[in-house]
Amino acid sequence: MLLRLSRQIAPAELRAVEAVAEELGYALTRLGERGDVAELARLPGSRPPAGPAHVAAFADLSGVVEILDRGDVRELWRARPDGAASTVVEAAGARFGGGSASIIAGPCAVEDEARLLEVAQAVRSRGASLLRGGAFKPRTSPYSFQGLGREGLEMLRNVREATGLGIVTEVLDPRDVEAVADAADLVQVGARSMANYALLKELGELRQPVLLKRGFGATVSEFLGAAEYVLAGGNESVVLCERGVRGFDRVTRNLLDVGAIAHLAGATHLPVITDPSHAAGRADLVRAIGRAGLIAGADGLMVEVHPAPAEVHSDGQQAIGLDEFGALVRDAEALCVLDDRRLVTLDETPDGASSRPSMSPLPTAHLRGTA
Amino acid sequence: MLLRLSRQIAPAELRAVEAVAEELGYALTRLGERGDVAELARLPGSRPPAGPAHVAAFADLSGVVEILDRGDVRELWRARPDGAASTVVEAAGARFGGGSASIIAGPCAVEDEARLLEVAQAVRSRGASLLRGGAFKPRTSPYSFQGLGREGLEMLRNVREATGLGIVTEVLDPRDVEAVADAADLVQVGARSMANYALLKELGELRQPVLLKRGFGATVSEFLGAAEYVLAGGNESVVLCERGVRGFDRVTRNLLDVGAIAHLAGATHLPVITDPSHAAGRADLVRAIGRAGLIAGADGLMVEVHPAPAEVHSDGQQAIGLDEFGALVRDAEALCVLDDRRLVTLDETPDGASSRPSMSPLPTAHLRGTA
Amino acid sequence: MLLRLSRQIAPAELRAVEAVAEELGYALTRLGERGDVAELARLPGSRPPAGPAHVAAFADLSGVVEILDRGDVRELWRARPDGAASTVVEAAGARFGGGSASIIAGPCAVEDEARLLEVAQAVRSRGASLLRGGAFKPRTSPYSFQGLGREGLEMLRNVREATGLGIVTEVLDPRDVEAVADAADLVQVGARSMANYALLKELGELRQPVLLKRGFGATVSEFLGAAEYVLAGGNESVVLCERGVRGFDRVTRNLLDVGAIAHLAGATHLPVITDPSHAAGRADLVRAIGRAGLIAGADGLMVEVHPAPAEVHSDGQQAIGLDEFGALVRDAEALCVLDDRRLVTLDETPDGASSRPSMSPLPTAHLRGTA
Amino acid sequence: MLLRLSRQIAPAELRAVEAVAEELGYALTRLGERGDVAELARLPGSRPPAGPAHVAAFADLSGVVEILDRGDVRELWRARPDGAASTVVEAAGARFGGGSASIIAGPCAVEDEARLLEVAQAVRSRGASLLRGGAFKPRTSPYSFQGLGREGLEMLRNVREATGLGIVTEVLDPRDVEAVADAADLVQVGARSMANYALLKELGELRQPVLLKRGFGATVSEFLGAAEYVLAGGNESVVLCERGVRGFDRVTRNLLDVGAIAHLAGATHLPVITDPSHAAGRADLVRAIGRAGLIAGADGLMVEVHPAPAEVHSDGQQAIGLDEFGALVRDAEALCVLDDRRLVTLDETPDGASSRPSMSPLPTAHLRGTA
Repeated sequence: MLLRLSRQIAPAELRAVEAVAEELGYALTRLGERGDVAELARLPGSRPPAGPAHVAAFADLSGVVEILDRGDVRELWRARPDGAASTVVEAAGARFGGGSASIIAGPCAVEDEARLLEVAQAVRSRGASLLRGGAFKPRTSPYSFQGLGREGLEMLRNVREATGLGIVTEVLDPRDVEAVADAADLVQVGARSMANYALLKELGELRQPVLLKRGFGATVSEFLGAAEYVLAGGNESVVLCERGVRGFDRVTRNLLDVGAIAHLAGATHLPVITDPSHAAGRADLVRAIGRAGLIAGADGLMVEVHPAPAEVHSDGQQAIGLDEFGALVRDAEALCVLDDRRLVTLDETPDGASSRPSMSPLPTAHLRGTA
Repeated sequence: MLLRLSRQIAPAELRAVEAVAEELGYALTRLGERGDVAELARLPGSRPPAGPAHVAAFADLSGVVEILDRGDVRELWRARPDGAASTVVEAAGARFGGGSASIIAGPCAVEDEARLLEVAQAVRSRGASLLRGGAFKPRTSPYSFQGLGREGLEMLRNVREATGLGIVTEVLDPRDVEAVADAADLVQVGARSMANYALLKELGELRQPVLLKRGFGATVSEFLGAAEYVLAGGNESVVLCERGVRGFDRVTRNLLDVGAIAHLAGATHLPVITDPSHAAGRADLVRAIGRAGLIAGADGLMVEVHPAPAEVHSDGQQAIGLDEFGALVRDAEALCVLDDRRLVTLDETPDGASSRPSMSPLPTAHLRGTA
Repeated sequence: MLLRLSRQIAPAELRAVEAVAEELGYALTRLGERGDVAELARLPGSRPPAGPAHVAAFADLSGVVEILDRGDVRELWRARPDGAASTVVEAAGARFGGGSASIIAGPCAVEDEARLLEVAQAVRSRGASLLRGGAFKPRTSPYSFQGLGREGLEMLRNVREATGLGIVTEVLDPRDVEAVADAADLVQVGARSMANYALLKELGELRQPVLLKRGFGATVSEFLGAAEYVLAGGNESVVLCERGVRGFDRVTRNLLDVGAIAHLAGATHLPVITDPSHAAGRADLVRAIGRAGLIAGADGLMVEVHPAPAEVHSDGQQAIGLDEFGALVRDAEALCVLDDRRLVTLDETPDGASSRPSMSPLPTAHLRGTA
Repeated sequence: MLLRLSRQIAPAELRAVEAVAEELGYALTRLGERGDVAELARLPGSRPPAGPAHVAAFADLSGVVEILDRGDVRELWRARPDGAASTVVEAAGARFGGGSASIIAGPCAVEDEARLLEVAQAVRSRGASLLRGGAFKPRTSPYSFQGLGREGLEMLRNVREATGLGIVTEVLDPRDVEAVADAADLVQVGARSMANYALLKELGELRQPVLLKRGFGATVSEFLGAAEYVLAGGNESVVLCERGVRGFDRVTRNLLDVGAIAHLAGATHLPVITDPSHAAGRADLVRAIGRAGLIAGADGLMVEVHPAPAEVHSDGQQAIGLDEFGALVRDAEALCVLDDRRLVTLDETPDGASSRPSMSPLPTAHLRGTA
């Protein structure tokens, strides 16, 4: 490990660095004429392994300006050395990462089972491989509709049974993790809960995959730190979701950070998807923004769809109709082909129960050349 | 109530508005040539009361563009009609609001009981009336020091016992509310938990006052919505805390929103304090930023103080030393005098146990004239 | 025209509104029970035409909250009524808008003529139809390289002569407009000059097309206002360029606002292109971000390219190499095909002087279906 | 000078660094085991002086990550070595910096001479020492009122003659510098022109002091770079003005960056004032925000005042009335006293022509102790 020390490091600060080094089993050597770089070499016989906790132990110290080199100590989210594969997260028939993309679609909130079933069938037949729908809704006002709660989870289970479509639904409270995980194939952490570390720790012990949305005021580094909470708990299946950050303009509700998607595609082995509905905040721009996220490197989409957008109780103005959704799926299929990736959709079987994923056709030679 | 409808409201949307009106006991009349304003009059005999839930029921509907006038339906955070007093929140000997200001000070995290006791005595003797210190710390990395947890709460209780100084400490998990409330005189919700509605609902049922920090990516409206969760649960003692929002520059860690402090001072009856330490992110600007927050209307300060800032494990670079803290308290005293407010400090008794609040001296005639 | 008045409009404010109405030839009628909506009907015989200046005259008045309906008074940038064509801006052989897209490429600054010629030939042969290069550079420090000025313009003219490639270069000072326009086929206004209204007015009198970049702190509305300065001066050829806005993260230099691109594509008849180099600020993300801008609706790209990125004096870390540029052009071609648009490139003739634009092949039936 | 080089510096990049070093007269030594720090020592006999241009020459090179130490090469805005005095800028009777503060007040735009005279007398008698008023107004729409131009300058000159109050007015176009300087005692560069380097260079050659406002999307570093353009041109009298940056909320028009004010107070020897009117964008918060800016370290205020705010053509909603202005001046006086600073106001003589600055009374012993 290589630390940059403050040029003004106080003697007491330096002693603290040395004490931590000794305790953790490192020899510390100061480099350069000014000694503001400290090299830490693992002492023979020191307790293995030198994990991220060691990096953090030094990073937390006063007088340590930055960690210049962490040797082979890596957070679990970091892209693996060349040659190692990306993580592919599978949930019901959906597949994210490693050249596969999938689409999650459905209403904002679960409100009525018959309607939910109708939407589920409609989005499945148009290419969605997971159904989204909130049973627990985080709302700015305590007087707004908060979702149907466990009754909503029951509806989601019923619709999964009826359609074979896996479920994505949000958990807000660590005490609900078990109940939500029972209904969900992919457990969602919403943007407002990204830094709810108590919740993330619970999800680290879960065996279901987790969909983690970036907070609208969170840096990419904080986003990856949140993912690390889940990974460090032992749950290796995390799908990241960029859904827009706060900006100063009002043309869209949020600013989709396509640069962050492109950065994450290279920086982490985890799959990244995008939610153009919350980024846009208006239905007419969802398709264009979703396309942009995909071509920037996203491994899938999460879209609010409603057969009758005008009737929805929350976020209605950003849900797209079925025709628009169908067009977006066809866009996604073509864009995946351009990059030699495959959009995974479910086979249309009569009852849906035995569906297996299918792929979009292999790219044509002409287009493969453009990737 | 007066709603603005969309000019393009669909017939189905309009029927939904009418149905909600009927269900909640209102007569709906469309006004103006274009009928895009709808007046809702309470029908005789309809179920009282027309609370904020009614406003939300209409605001959630598609085709309703905005609520133009909510009649006498008011959220609980709204400033009361003229003549009614502001809410004064008292915690141990501290008092926030209604012309009183208090200072909360202490280390970022609780790390060592002897050291905590030393800090507590030092800040108390310089004018703090509450001790801050985190037992549960929300950290970006799971490998960073997460606080001592319940052991830290025990230390805080011991130091309260020894010094008579009330405790402010953060709760992260709804399952820890009871334990934290047992140690805290003022229970803190941190910026990252501002939209943790499960936690806020638990705190609504608490009888202890709550210190609610604004999320660094949250609008003022979302901040007040979060306060409403606590108030709506029956807990009337909420202190708001502005601690800076995310900006695009790196000169300070966050941008203290003094305009929001000034706005809140008029818009809500709740007391508002400010945390210059997290806004600045560097010790040399804490005093100036704290002064700015106070003179903009804040009813108190929350400051990170450490007798040896260089030794702290987290956020060390923003903790100020004791001399700087003393200077900031004297600033606060003078600024309160300018505005005919009083800085509440605790009496210095030998053991501290029987301390009662004392006030800063009444302003001089000269300065009172400037307020 | 339809105005929303303040409910608290003062008598003097109302008289001012009425006086302006009378002066401009309108009858004013207040609508609704509260009279907070004022309808302005053109009086017979009043001076035509009721242009945007009339809208502004009312919008500027105190007591006028917003312009609800501007009748047929429209800013020149607004999308034309259905059926009317988008504006196509042509510059040398490039074409932006109306289903055509073009690529502008070249170094950040003009530094050496031989090198510039080499880059020009290299980007032309890979699909660029305009050469970019700054002779006047806006630099944060007065001690940084400010460009070669008129000597750089001379180099650009020479390279145009030699390669047949049209020139895009920036003007910073209204006094340089003539000199720059003499060298440029498309005159660039940089992000820092977007609100330089003295400069924009000069460009309104020019007959050359203008490339207007969005300020990194400017709203879309301010951006369109800036375009209106050029259009109102009589210059109908404006290409808008979204190049990223300031955000709070540091993963990329700026945040490309793909939502603004998608919004502009519908809101204005003017072509919109994107500059992924300044958005990314790092070469490895330029291609992904450029693709995202195009698929969100941009009519072209402006890219920094350098055969030896490491040697550049300014912004070197964001210039891409020739291979990466070639790959981005092929991406652009394929993405245009997906949307039934055409990427315009120049014919490769031996001397380049007589080049005419060529189109990318018509889309295949398969892909046309996805648009 | 000490540079940090990229660990991945290419051989060609390194050669470029060495070539620049040789050309400018430095010996280059690589330090540390990894050689990623390069020390540049001035060679005996090399051409003096090693000014900021040398720093920029290296900072611009690829492979140079940052300038770690610039030796004694300092930009002109940097705070002088300990002991050296701050710059005091005087304009008419006003004085900014070095313990003196002054207040600039007046309408947004100059519209009517009689009214301007009335405002001038009113603000002077309440403590303003300079009159602000725009003759050239930068407006988002070309159809909005653009100011009276040279006719407005004439009015300002007349009012100065009549009242003895110095003038602050904005210049937008380098071709107007002479005309504006003829009417202005302090020439203003507005936020939108902060990066108009052609204009700044003209102002560097002026002998009148310059008031430079921070762009609402500009970093502090860019702000200081803009000031350096004026200073490097030979004009040593620059007053900086923080007036709020763009934020994501709408409670105020901009976010006053009090942290930047506090930072600038220590980082530069130039005086810094604040404009609470543009920060707030609403009259009711101007006083609170102005107080905050002052106590954070600002050396003065610039405030929009209008005797009849409702009648103004531009920005009316943020102009405060005369009583509110008087209260703000009294606040400023008291806050200056707290910090042992003096608010400079003009003597009230019958004709105003021979006014000399007067100081607020010396602080009382009690309050001086708090500073």
